[in-house]
Amino acid sequence: MGKSRLEAFSDGVLAIIITIMVLELKVPHGADLDSLAPLMPVVLSYVLSFIYVGIYWNNHHHLLHAAKGISGGVLWANLHLLFWLSLLPFATGWMGENHFAQLPCAVYGFVLLMAAIAYALLQRCIIAVEGATSILKRAVGADWKGKLSPVIYLAAIGASFEAGWLSLALYVFVAAMWLVPDRRIERVIAGTET
Amino acid sequence: MGKSRLEAFSDGVLAIIITIMVLELKVPHGADLDSLAPLMPVVLSYVLSFIYVGIYWNNHHHLLHAAKGISGGVLWANLHLLFWLSLLPFATGWMGENHFAQLPCAVYGFVLLMAAIAYALLQRCIIAVEGATSILKRAVGADWKGKLSPVIYLAAIGASFEAGWLSLALYVFVAAMWLVPDRRIERVIAGTET
Amino acid sequence: MGKSRLEAFSDGVLAIIITIMVLELKVPHGADLDSLAPLMPVVLSYVLSFIYVGIYWNNHHHLLHAAKGISGGVLWANLHLLFWLSLLPFATGWMGENHFAQLPCAVYGFVLLMAAIAYALLQRCIIAVEGATSILKRAVGADWKGKLSPVIYLAAIGASFEAGWLSLALYVFVAAMWLVPDRRIERVIAGTET
Amino acid sequence: MGKSRLEAFSDGVLAIIITIMVLELKVPHGADLDSLAPLMPVVLSYVLSFIYVGIYWNNHHHLLHAAKGISGGVLWANLHLLFWLSLLPFATGWMGENHFAQLPCAVYGFVLLMAAIAYALLQRCIIAVEGATSILKRAVGADWKGKLSPVIYLAAIGASFEAGWLSLALYVFVAAMWLVPDRRIERVIAGTET
Repeated sequence: MGKSRLEAFSDGVLAIIITIMVLELKVPHGADLDSLAPLMPVVLSYVLSFIYVGIYWNNHHHLLHAAKGISGGVLWANLHLLFWLSLLPFATGWMGENHFAQLPCAVYGFVLLMAAIAYALLQRCIIAVEGATSILKRAVGADWKGKLSPVIYLAAIGASFEAGWLSLALYVFVAAMWLVPDRRIERVIAGTET
Repeated sequence: MGKSRLEAFSDGVLAIIITIMVLELKVPHGADLDSLAPLMPVVLSYVLSFIYVGIYWNNHHHLLHAAKGISGGVLWANLHLLFWLSLLPFATGWMGENHFAQLPCAVYGFVLLMAAIAYALLQRCIIAVEGATSILKRAVGADWKGKLSPVIYLAAIGASFEAGWLSLALYVFVAAMWLVPDRRIERVIAGTET
Repeated sequence: MGKSRLEAFSDGVLAIIITIMVLELKVPHGADLDSLAPLMPVVLSYVLSFIYVGIYWNNHHHLLHAAKGISGGVLWANLHLLFWLSLLPFATGWMGENHFAQLPCAVYGFVLLMAAIAYALLQRCIIAVEGATSILKRAVGADWKGKLSPVIYLAAIGASFEAGWLSLALYVFVAAMWLVPDRRIERVIAGTET
Repeated sequence: MGKSRLEAFSDGVLAIIITIMVLELKVPHGADLDSLAPLMPVVLSYVLSFIYVGIYWNNHHHLLHAAKGISGGVLWANLHLLFWLSLLPFATGWMGENHFAQLPCAVYGFVLLMAAIAYALLQRCIIAVEGATSILKRAVGADWKGKLSPVIYLAAIGASFEAGWLSLALYVFVAAMWLVPDRRIERVIAGTET
């Protein structure tokens, strides 16, 4: 089974997720600065989530580019990832509208944590299809970013009950860590092609 | 006429259906557990419908992968299927917001029933295009899952007037039954290619 | 310039238009038949518009399949068509929620009329790119359906001020007329390939 | 890394942006002209933004058609452009609902300004990947339109505090200037192919 339709469907869902998040940015009734000001936390959380979905799309792109075959397990692991990412607009809107209150910040972290776990599962499924000589496996290597992120999310969930802004700082930190694109896969592929 | 645009359009519609369902998950005004709790049935019904759309996307993927040609009839049979699936977000939201009350559960079952019938019609249309030696026909075989599901949906619609939760259990059962991916088609194709 | 991205973008917009129309079907607060009943006109107008978008997607599919080249003019003629179709969800919701009142029915007809004109313009642009020996031109032929539809839309707009239901009957009639797929293009292409 | 998935994802996001803007066109409760009239400024701003997204899609199409390779930088420059364009539905709705009041008109100009800057950055990133002999670089040439637009947006933001309609006239002027498709790239490519 080809992987192009899996990519197309994932692109579609990710494109919709990244775009409907902006619907939480409700048009205010007034036309002055006072009616724009309360939207600022919503805008801020939107920017953060936009970057997160961008990171996922980017890494998903690399991951599937490296994948050779698709199994039924990969299809469902992919849908599982999309499920958690589809909850991001809700978590984003709730966190922004409540000005980074404790519980919404914790829920936001929980959604990020589950998405990270789902991504790791998808990666494992694709490697399993490729078998022992998996290029992807070598490319992913120790995967310290993939292992560190869930730990920080857990810490951030804990921190959110101390102060919402503390957890937010941790979410920003993880995003910054991932913004450096995942060149490992590119490098190993380039290596095999030589 | 090629089938790639039919696949692309269907992927687009299914991607949007699966994602706009989450818009029924309205961001609550409060930031505490009390304001999150009433959302739980909506989340639950969202999970169920997400799995259903995932199953349909998965099987649709297999079905069109096996299809050789597309006729005008296939195009409309496909749109007919997408129509019923497009009503799923409404049925999901109504069922979730009313905590699995009788009528919403029955309507949810009705939408699933019509989608199942539309899928069977699409399958028949594609087989008709392929003619007597259809690989797909052999692959589908007795199609006991496709025949059993509508019967269970009908039973669930009846059961919903007894108790919403009873019908819900039946919907979960059918989803679980389908979660095992449809390997029949893959197997027969692999067989012909040998 | 290739036409595949034009097709992909149009498919995306049409898939979104056909799906967001269902968002006008607001989840009612009650869970009984009384709260479902007022939705019936909205459902009815949704079914009609779903079929119309389906017809446009179908014919657009044929039209671009036959097109050989894309010019800047074709790109904008295509966007112009998508613009009018993008107003269909609004017109559909307004007509349905007002139980087929006069003005909403007239506006619905106006949107259909403009979309029909935009489609004719797009067809003309594509034929112009192909030049004098255009296969598409021969395929389209007298195009009586394309010429009759705007006339009926105009009549329906006039009729709507008599009674909304009268214009609705005319919209249903035009949809039924188009439901027969446009086999002319297929036939002529098949003819040249022989 | 291929550019097809980048194009597909961008097409998806642009298709959603252009379509969800119409969701700001809320279905009015009444069915007479009086309830339709207040929507006119919203429709007007929708038409303007529809044309702007159309221009961006068109130019994006040309830009990526000319691009030979994609780097991580290009991916993020592209997402950056999509981010600013994703704010257009909000800015459009706010401007339209407030009948082109001063601040909303200024914010609309700000979003257009940032999108123009993001587009210039994307263009620069793609040229950087191609290196010194970039066809695209020659094709873009002096790029007077790309340099003039931000200047006019800035002037329009200033003018908006004088009168909203003044800035609107400038936005219409820039759109009109771009509506002439960017034939430079096509011409240079055609030149190299000879």
